[in-house]
Amino acid sequence: MSSKSHPEIKVGILGATGTVGQRFIQLLANHPYFKIHALGASSRSAGQQYSKITKWKLNTTIPEFVQKMVVQECKPDAEGFADCGVVFSGLDADVAGDIEEAFRSANLIVYSNAKSYRRDPLCPLIVPLVNPSHLDIIPHQRSSLSLSKGYIVTNANCSTTGLVVPLAALEKAFGPLETVMVTTLQAISGAGYPGVSSLDILDNVVPHIGGEEEKIEWETNKILGGLKSSNKEFDLHATEQTKPINVSATCTRVPVIDGHTGVVSVKFTQNPPPSIEQIDKAFREFTCEAQDLGVPSAPAQAIVVHDAPDRPQPRLDRDLHNGACVSVGRIRDCPVFDVKFVCLIDNVRLGAATSSIMNAEIAVEKGYIQ
Amino acid sequence: MSSKSHPEIKVGILGATGTVGQRFIQLLANHPYFKIHALGASSRSAGQQYSKITKWKLNTTIPEFVQKMVVQECKPDAEGFADCGVVFSGLDADVAGDIEEAFRSANLIVYSNAKSYRRDPLCPLIVPLVNPSHLDIIPHQRSSLSLSKGYIVTNANCSTTGLVVPLAALEKAFGPLETVMVTTLQAISGAGYPGVSSLDILDNVVPHIGGEEEKIEWETNKILGGLKSSNKEFDLHATEQTKPINVSATCTRVPVIDGHTGVVSVKFTQNPPPSIEQIDKAFREFTCEAQDLGVPSAPAQAIVVHDAPDRPQPRLDRDLHNGACVSVGRIRDCPVFDVKFVCLIDNVRLGAATSSIMNAEIAVEKGYIQ
Amino acid sequence: MSSKSHPEIKVGILGATGTVGQRFIQLLANHPYFKIHALGASSRSAGQQYSKITKWKLNTTIPEFVQKMVVQECKPDAEGFADCGVVFSGLDADVAGDIEEAFRSANLIVYSNAKSYRRDPLCPLIVPLVNPSHLDIIPHQRSSLSLSKGYIVTNANCSTTGLVVPLAALEKAFGPLETVMVTTLQAISGAGYPGVSSLDILDNVVPHIGGEEEKIEWETNKILGGLKSSNKEFDLHATEQTKPINVSATCTRVPVIDGHTGVVSVKFTQNPPPSIEQIDKAFREFTCEAQDLGVPSAPAQAIVVHDAPDRPQPRLDRDLHNGACVSVGRIRDCPVFDVKFVCLIDNVRLGAATSSIMNAEIAVEKGYIQ
Amino acid sequence: MSSKSHPEIKVGILGATGTVGQRFIQLLANHPYFKIHALGASSRSAGQQYSKITKWKLNTTIPEFVQKMVVQECKPDAEGFADCGVVFSGLDADVAGDIEEAFRSANLIVYSNAKSYRRDPLCPLIVPLVNPSHLDIIPHQRSSLSLSKGYIVTNANCSTTGLVVPLAALEKAFGPLETVMVTTLQAISGAGYPGVSSLDILDNVVPHIGGEEEKIEWETNKILGGLKSSNKEFDLHATEQTKPINVSATCTRVPVIDGHTGVVSVKFTQNPPPSIEQIDKAFREFTCEAQDLGVPSAPAQAIVVHDAPDRPQPRLDRDLHNGACVSVGRIRDCPVFDVKFVCLIDNVRLGAATSSIMNAEIAVEKGYIQ
Repeated sequence: MSSKSHPEIKVGILGATGTVGQRFIQLLANHPYFKIHALGASSRSAGQQYSKITKWKLNTTIPEFVQKMVVQECKPDAEGFADCGVVFSGLDADVAGDIEEAFRSANLIVYSNAKSYRRDPLCPLIVPLVNPSHLDIIPHQRSSLSLSKGYIVTNANCSTTGLVVPLAALEKAFGPLETVMVTTLQAISGAGYPGVSSLDILDNVVPHIGGEEEKIEWETNKILGGLKSSNKEFDLHATEQTKPINVSATCTRVPVIDGHTGVVSVKFTQNPPPSIEQIDKAFREFTCEAQDLGVPSAPAQAIVVHDAPDRPQPRLDRDLHNGACVSVGRIRDCPVFDVKFVCLIDNVRLGAATSSIMNAEIAVEKGYIQ
Repeated sequence: MSSKSHPEIKVGILGATGTVGQRFIQLLANHPYFKIHALGASSRSAGQQYSKITKWKLNTTIPEFVQKMVVQECKPDAEGFADCGVVFSGLDADVAGDIEEAFRSANLIVYSNAKSYRRDPLCPLIVPLVNPSHLDIIPHQRSSLSLSKGYIVTNANCSTTGLVVPLAALEKAFGPLETVMVTTLQAISGAGYPGVSSLDILDNVVPHIGGEEEKIEWETNKILGGLKSSNKEFDLHATEQTKPINVSATCTRVPVIDGHTGVVSVKFTQNPPPSIEQIDKAFREFTCEAQDLGVPSAPAQAIVVHDAPDRPQPRLDRDLHNGACVSVGRIRDCPVFDVKFVCLIDNVRLGAATSSIMNAEIAVEKGYIQ
Repeated sequence: MSSKSHPEIKVGILGATGTVGQRFIQLLANHPYFKIHALGASSRSAGQQYSKITKWKLNTTIPEFVQKMVVQECKPDAEGFADCGVVFSGLDADVAGDIEEAFRSANLIVYSNAKSYRRDPLCPLIVPLVNPSHLDIIPHQRSSLSLSKGYIVTNANCSTTGLVVPLAALEKAFGPLETVMVTTLQAISGAGYPGVSSLDILDNVVPHIGGEEEKIEWETNKILGGLKSSNKEFDLHATEQTKPINVSATCTRVPVIDGHTGVVSVKFTQNPPPSIEQIDKAFREFTCEAQDLGVPSAPAQAIVVHDAPDRPQPRLDRDLHNGACVSVGRIRDCPVFDVKFVCLIDNVRLGAATSSIMNAEIAVEKGYIQ
Repeated sequence: MSSKSHPEIKVGILGATGTVGQRFIQLLANHPYFKIHALGASSRSAGQQYSKITKWKLNTTIPEFVQKMVVQECKPDAEGFADCGVVFSGLDADVAGDIEEAFRSANLIVYSNAKSYRRDPLCPLIVPLVNPSHLDIIPHQRSSLSLSKGYIVTNANCSTTGLVVPLAALEKAFGPLETVMVTTLQAISGAGYPGVSSLDILDNVVPHIGGEEEKIEWETNKILGGLKSSNKEFDLHATEQTKPINVSATCTRVPVIDGHTGVVSVKFTQNPPPSIEQIDKAFREFTCEAQDLGVPSAPAQAIVVHDAPDRPQPRLDRDLHNGACVSVGRIRDCPVFDVKFVCLIDNVRLGAATSSIMNAEIAVEKGYIQ
């Protein structure tokens, strides 16, 4: 853990009444240096007390000082946002693009959970346990837009995040991957509130989540890629020499509240591939920059490997390390590719709010937030 | 449908009080020519009325004439079994082997849902919509064991059955498959009663079902294989010239009552592979011998193709064609193999009792049951 | 069952794309004399094929002839409605009042599942297994509004219906009741689609359903009441001499798809009260006018009494008699009142669409629909 | 909170591998003065490491020092128990009676969650937020059995506990109650593991829990009663002058993991009864001896009153105050009795392990454990 102490940094939260916004509030309420300062929501909520207009759906109570905070419109000149060192966005995809752009144009710093800028060649798409080095494109983003301070950083789709952490561990230990096949079993909280109708999911599986498979198949290569030496362009996957990983995803919704499960098969480019024991060891020994920097939200262990043959399970394992790690289990030979395993991520913490926060914590260490 | 009328054939049911046994009773109660004649269960149930000792878990009532039937021990000389033209077995794996062998040795005909004899080189492993031609090994089974009449036929594991029907349609249209990757999301009823504890599955996924993956990976090749010309030996997969399909399976349990979902990716040997349109058409046009013979339990359609992007779903689609068909949807390109799709089977009907019954109906048409 | 055969009667369905509307279609598709002729939905659906705009959520397929029917606006002069002998309304409460009134004003007959006219002193509120005699106010309703043919009949709230059938059996056998205490455990389908968010109900109970308790407490007395001899006014509860039943209800939502459970305690006015055996017998022997008339949707048994100590259960018992009966179990002494029992109703069949249809069938027999 | 610091007290746990035993371990792992010293389980588990034989079902990991503890048989002379200042019992009812008696006979102190001694006229039945004064019968229990130290204290059934805390608040403020009607909606964890089969509870309600209603109806009066002045006998309900409360309970099982909901109607003896506002205030202001003594497991608030009309809800509210309080909501007029409300208890914490522990903490303060 970091021994450094930081001066307080005021933060804003966009989409504060929504599912991800509530998690931001829950996770930031006792943060060592980020202080919740401004809450943004839709114009019909603006001007009202947070507790009056929010259908709070977490099993902790609304932090007392937040209950009475007055919600603002999601505009950069609404009260409070101009003072914020960073603004976290939990906005829905349909409005995130324009609002986040407005905040950036106003020279504010946005760490977003929305998908709008993930494919933008100027915006880093960061899974904090994997590729915080991509933050180094920020100066280029600023200068391209003639901004002295404002920029946007995005984190990945929740199920991409759960997949890419173990993939990063494998690439770190054994070099580039060739092929990844993944089936996800995703929790209802991933769809927000009210989100999935109970009539659609009780005693049921919905084998389709709009746009999700494309996100996994595309985002994986941006995240596992590098920055070219100029710090002005991303490499899709790893290095300038590596071919993209061939990713095939099928996404399903299951009656689980929190926690996305992934069933994964992987083929390495290395031939012969590593043994199951080597792979198991690589997962267990994986450490990342967030841990080295000792940022407050970094988990003690990035990947928790489960020995029991029927783990990880969402209900039992999603809370490990406060939802900030990825669980892996059932590591075994694949008759078709090299290795099969099961992974699990808390989709609302590391899969959403925790990633944004940890990304910002790392940016503080690197001087991109002050 | 068959225009033939058959004389009544008395049938016995082993494991009559269990989950599969209850389905046998429900499905056979109004059968045109199979008549429930003897019910077998554990020795502590023997001698008692069926309705008194059975925790009936179906949403139809116990057929009236069955309620008062006296349950027998599962012994071939227990009252009634000797008169049966066929005995259906819904026994648990731990006792099925010995009991079924005893019935066969007593020259009785057993159609079994248990796994005990699936890998036996003398026993056909039949999915009725796929490979009833394997019944032709019956004379060899009988003569090998010096039996004039008795033999055992097995049907496949429930999730294998749901997978192998669409695979058979693809092979019929496009020749041998090379590779199949499948993830299953299986219903709790597949584990019997009491089976899965509610504490293990509410708000949860269990990513492991003991022995299930091996069954899928092995059974697929026996079912899709042929009989050598001697009618005395099975070919693993298709023809004497074909290599086994490389199958990789991961099996998970989800909070669904009935209906196993499969997420499938397939690579053909044919190069270039068929187009998505051709594949869609092959599924829709697939017909099978059970339909040609017009046996009573054959579905009007063997494979139902769903156009909606979020189907099939277990709760909405498991009852189609009285649970005797396989649903297929989301047929689309796979970035890694040739095609991806989702399939669904009613695990307790076509995946269990309906298969045994339909196999026996086909055997009646072929003269293997009289 | 009725030996009478009826000429075909064309019927319309308002709110045809909704949860109750889908049930109307499913239940009427094979009706002996009601023929689906016109479908009404919101103006943005009007003009389109039914199957194109409907999120069909039942586990049977849309009847083939309905799939291609063109949906109309819910206006009496929209194509087809003028020809209908009866129009069934599955409209949402917020629009039902005005639309149903417009249809009645156009001299059409409306059998409504909505709450809008339940408390109207001119409108019968009919549970078909209980009080079809209230139809006799129809002539008064017509004359009050100077209509030659048009009128509105409503059926009760789904949980009221499940309660009032056993209460009617008790009053029929033992005279007026004094007090009823009821707690309901209601299914999600009662809230329509999308209705209850899965995040609100998975692993949860919601101990409140807006307006539901008031409906039970009020409707019970109108239904169990009579018509004054003039056939122009309702008596609240039973006879001109009887005091209203004192009803206290608490309504909760539970993670059940279909089937409302009621936990009931009752105090009789008769002192000493009947014995448990007498009460049990009264439930079993209860018959009603719908059965005497032999209308097509009448259940063979109005009340099914369960002997098993843990029944009725929604998943196992909601389908009894095609969802047209009420199940009762756990009949036993109450330490506080006279008797406690548990009741169960299929909220989307007898609790909604089946009641409207059966009411209309009875009205046909009585000459109120021609 | 207590300012006193206590010397360490070694504790044993009987039934340590079961559902309640796991909660004892989770809750005691970081206790300020109780130190887990001995674990007892069935003879086939004895001699093995705890983590090897336990199907741990909590979403926290097994405390590290417990993982390697060797499990003992549940015998007072098994290693470690003799040193324990108190032994907590989470044993199943079928074995608890004999084992707890053996421990007491060996002069050990047992705080039991089992039902065996709840009705014993020598044993206190204590809900720690309600009647710790009943501990004062301990000297009489000891002397009756000629024991210098050993005794048994029981805590109440989980659903009784959730009911009796708000009832105690009402009696404290408004005097004796006359009548209580309660319907419970109980979580699956109340039945232990494997407990409720998933096939019995998914998409279902089971309206019966064996023996549960009798426990609520009987235990309530012992708990709300007093000790006669001799400290040698219990008064059923309140004082020597008060009649027992007339309690009627119906217990149902619902698909909820943790948290029992109670729907309650109450009649006071006081006439006129208190107003809803007075009742609301009485709940909010209720405090208890456990809080006055400042024992470590006492909640900051004994009763949390919810203002939202749809609360308390098990999933959202069971974790309040670490599961050690009772939630109350929907306080309103009852048309039949005086007031209706909904209550919620975490059945595995305050409803089980937390009660035993808090009882023991109070006993430490009172000198009954040293």
